[in-house]
Amino acid sequence: MSSNPVLIVGSVALDSVRTPSGTTERALGGAAVYSSVAASFFAPVRIVGVVGEDFPKKHIDFLRSRDIDLQGLQIISGGQTFHWAGSYEGDLNQADTLATELNVFQDFRPELPDAYKSSQYVFLANIDPELQLKVLDQVPDAKLKAMDTMDFWITGKSEALLEVIRRVDIVFINDAEIRLLTGIINLTKAAAHLRSLGPKYVIVKKGEHGAMMYCDEKMHFAAASYPLEEVADPTGAGDSFAGGFMGYLAGSGRLVKENLRRAVIYGSTLASYTVQEFSLNRFRNLTRTEIANRYEEFRQMVWVD
Amino acid sequence: MSSNPVLIVGSVALDSVRTPSGTTERALGGAAVYSSVAASFFAPVRIVGVVGEDFPKKHIDFLRSRDIDLQGLQIISGGQTFHWAGSYEGDLNQADTLATELNVFQDFRPELPDAYKSSQYVFLANIDPELQLKVLDQVPDAKLKAMDTMDFWITGKSEALLEVIRRVDIVFINDAEIRLLTGIINLTKAAAHLRSLGPKYVIVKKGEHGAMMYCDEKMHFAAASYPLEEVADPTGAGDSFAGGFMGYLAGSGRLVKENLRRAVIYGSTLASYTVQEFSLNRFRNLTRTEIANRYEEFRQMVWVD
Repeated sequence: MSSNPVLIVGSVALDSVRTPSGTTERALGGAAVYSSVAASFFAPVRIVGVVGEDFPKKHIDFLRSRDIDLQGLQIISGGQTFHWAGSYEGDLNQADTLATELNVFQDFRPELPDAYKSSQYVFLANIDPELQLKVLDQVPDAKLKAMDTMDFWITGKSEALLEVIRRVDIVFINDAEIRLLTGIINLTKAAAHLRSLGPKYVIVKKGEHGAMMYCDEKMHFAAASYPLEEVADPTGAGDSFAGGFMGYLAGSGRLVKENLRRAVIYGSTLASYTVQEFSLNRFRNLTRTEIANRYEEFRQMVWVD
Repeated sequence: MSSNPVLIVGSVALDSVRTPSGTTERALGGAAVYSSVAASFFAPVRIVGVVGEDFPKKHIDFLRSRDIDLQGLQIISGGQTFHWAGSYEGDLNQADTLATELNVFQDFRPELPDAYKSSQYVFLANIDPELQLKVLDQVPDAKLKAMDTMDFWITGKSEALLEVIRRVDIVFINDAEIRLLTGIINLTKAAAHLRSLGPKYVIVKKGEHGAMMYCDEKMHFAAASYPLEEVADPTGAGDSFAGGFMGYLAGSGRLVKENLRRAVIYGSTLASYTVQEFSLNRFRNLTRTEIANRYEEFRQMVWVD
C-alpha cells in the first residue's frame, strides 16, 4: 500500500433507516463515513466533518480502528449530530426522506488541519457546493480532485455547483442527477456535456444497473453491479463506491487508465458489500481477501473473448 | 458460417412510430422481422409469420436479399397486415401504444413447412404462448429453444406462458416483465426462480442498461449497452438482440459458455445498430466488418485486468 492519503470531506451522520429487510435507529452513517471506511481498505484516510457531543464513542473508536485520521473531525460541545431518517421500498433504488435534522451540520465550515493541506487525493462528498469550493481552496497540491453531489444542490445552488465541477477532475453523479443538472436525457450526451466543462472523468452511478465511466478518450468504461439476491440497505452504496474508487487510486499511486478501470471495479465491490447489511456493519469484518475474491468475480462476470 | 438455420416465429408488421427524432408511417417492423434480419448476419434464417395482401413487395424483396427463407410466411389474400402504432418520449425506455390493429395476425396459426421441422435452433418471438406451444410441438429435434414474451401474455395467459417457459432452454424477458411474471423485485432472485422452472438461461434485457444472462452456474454474465449519443427509434431493440444472439449461436454451432457470452455481445451489437435509425433501416447497409468492429468496442468497454 502506498502512503498517499485520501482526504474526504462530507457528512457524518446518525441514520434511521427502514427497508423491507428491517430497520435501524441512529446507526452510523453519512457520506464521509461510508466513503472513508471504503477508502481505508486501500489507503490512509483523512476525514473532515462535524459531529455533536452525542456522537457515540464506539463510532469514533471504529473509525480510528480503520486508521482514519480524525484530526479534521470537529466535535461540537453541546451539539447534536446530523440525523437522517429515510425508507426504501420496492426496487430500493430511491429513498424517501422522512426527516433531515441538520443540527451541527447546519453550521459546518470545513477547516483543514495544516497536516491535511498537502493532500493529493481529495474527495468532496455530497455537501453544499460553496463548502466544496472552500475545501478546494485549501488543497493547492491536489493531483486528483473528485466530487459528488445531490438533487438538492443541483436545484438550489447550481452556480456554485458548476464552479466546483469546473475545478475537479472527476464527477460522481447518479443517472437522475446528471439528467436534472444538464437537462439532457441521453446519459452519454449528458456526460459529454459535463466533461466539456472541465472534468476528465464523469462517473454515472446507476444503482442496480452498475456504473459508467465516461472518459476523455472515445472509449468509455462500463461496470455492472454485483448481482445480489438480497439487499438489506442501499444507504451509502454510492459513497462506498466513490470511497473505494478513490482509495484504490491513492493506494496504487498511478493515474493510468488501467488503474482507473480497476478503481471502478473496486468501488463497485465495496458498494456491493455495503448494501448487504445495514449501516456500515458489513465493513466491520470485511477482509482484503474477500475484496480480492469479489473483484475477481466481477472480472469473470464481464469477461468475453 | 455454419449451415445451421434459425427458425423464427413471430409478428410481421407495419409500424407507425413517433420518437423525439421523427416519425415513420407503416414502415417494416414486427418481432420476427427484426430478429430474423439480425440473425441473418450470422446464419440462414427460416421465418414463420403472416402478412396481408397489402404487405409491400419491397419488404419481401428485402427479406429475401438477406437470405431469409420465406416458405413459412403466409400471405392472406384480401387481408391487411398487422399494424402497430406507438410513440416514445423522455428516456425512450417505454413505448406508448397508440393503436394495435391485429388484422391477419388475429387468426395466425403457425404451420411449419416440412422443410422447417428439423430446425435445431428455434426462436419463439413474442406471440400468444398457446401458439408458441404449437410451434414447439412441430420441432422435435430442436437443440436450442428460446422464447420472448410481453406483459400482455403474462397478465392474460400466464398458465400457457409458464408451460412454454418449462419447455425452452432460454427465456428472453425484460426487467419489468420478469418482475411482473414472478412477483419478485430483485432481478437475480427473479431469474433464479424462472431458471428453477426449467430454462438453463434467463436473459434479462434492461434497455439502455444492457442485459444480464443468468446461468446454471453461479457465475452470471453482465453486458453493458453501447453508449450511443443518439437513439432514433428503440423499436425492435430487444428482438434484434435475441435474433443476433440466436443467429450467432446457430452460426457457431457450439453451445459452449464462451459462445453464449459472445452471443450476448453480438446481440447487444445488433440492438445498438437497430436503434440508430427508424425501422430496420440501419440493417439495410450494415456490414459484417461494422459488426466486428463494434463487437471489439464492446469488449474494450468492459475490459479490466
